[in-house]
Amino acid sequence: MEEQIDSVGKAFVDHYYHSFDNDRPAMSSLYQPTSMLTFEGQKLQGVEDIVTKLTQLPFDQCRHVISTVDSQPASVTGGIVVFVSGSLQLPGENHPLQFSQMFHLSPTPQGNFFVLNDIFRLNY
Amino acid sequence: MEEQIDSVGKAFVDHYYHSFDNDRPAMSSLYQPTSMLTFEGQKLQGVEDIVTKLTQLPFDQCRHVISTVDSQPASVTGGIVVFVSGSLQLPGENHPLQFSQMFHLSPTPQGNFFVLNDIFRLNY
Repeated sequence: MEEQIDSVGKAFVDHYYHSFDNDRPAMSSLYQPTSMLTFEGQKLQGVEDIVTKLTQLPFDQCRHVISTVDSQPASVTGGIVVFVSGSLQLPGENHPLQFSQMFHLSPTPQGNFFVLNDIFRLNY
Repeated sequence: MEEQIDSVGKAFVDHYYHSFDNDRPAMSSLYQPTSMLTFEGQKLQGVEDIVTKLTQLPFDQCRHVISTVDSQPASVTGGIVVFVSGSLQLPGENHPLQFSQMFHLSPTPQGNFFVLNDIFRLNY
């Protein structure tokens, strides 16, 4: 069970940042109308607002490098919380930016997960 | 509703780190048998294991300074996720350590919250 949670968390993280770095509009499949994103303190809710925020960030290309992924079961209802630390390389910047991000993944009736909670912060 | 969530998150964070810095054994009241803590990658579950870990950290005194607190409702069942960034000043250390931590607070029948999920990482 515990190893399953870790596997699901890692697989989600790989998929999330691969999509972020290569096809940001495709991230709409990860969210649902109840999803929430707090990005550097700005609160957004719902697929459209969240994906608009992500696709309109002031850089076209980026590359996330993951340092740590910690996952735990979030409740008896099958949710998972995932905590990520890593760095973000932006074009034209010499130094990557350190970030931390947490996700609360909620199960769908189809046996997948969607992102219910998403909180992102750069580490200064 | 949104302001309530923020207030609950901030009040919890103040209480948590005040207890951590001043009376770590009292933190047992924040956890329940189903609680999970992942501390720098080490997984612990249950009140006793979690509080033993926290009270046996290799420093007696410390001071947390909070930089950011982001809170969101976690589900229709009344949970809250809280994401914290800040720094940790240890005795004899010139420079504070940067950290990030997330909590998933779950409501109790008495109308309070306990920590269901707790993940802590230092930011290197």
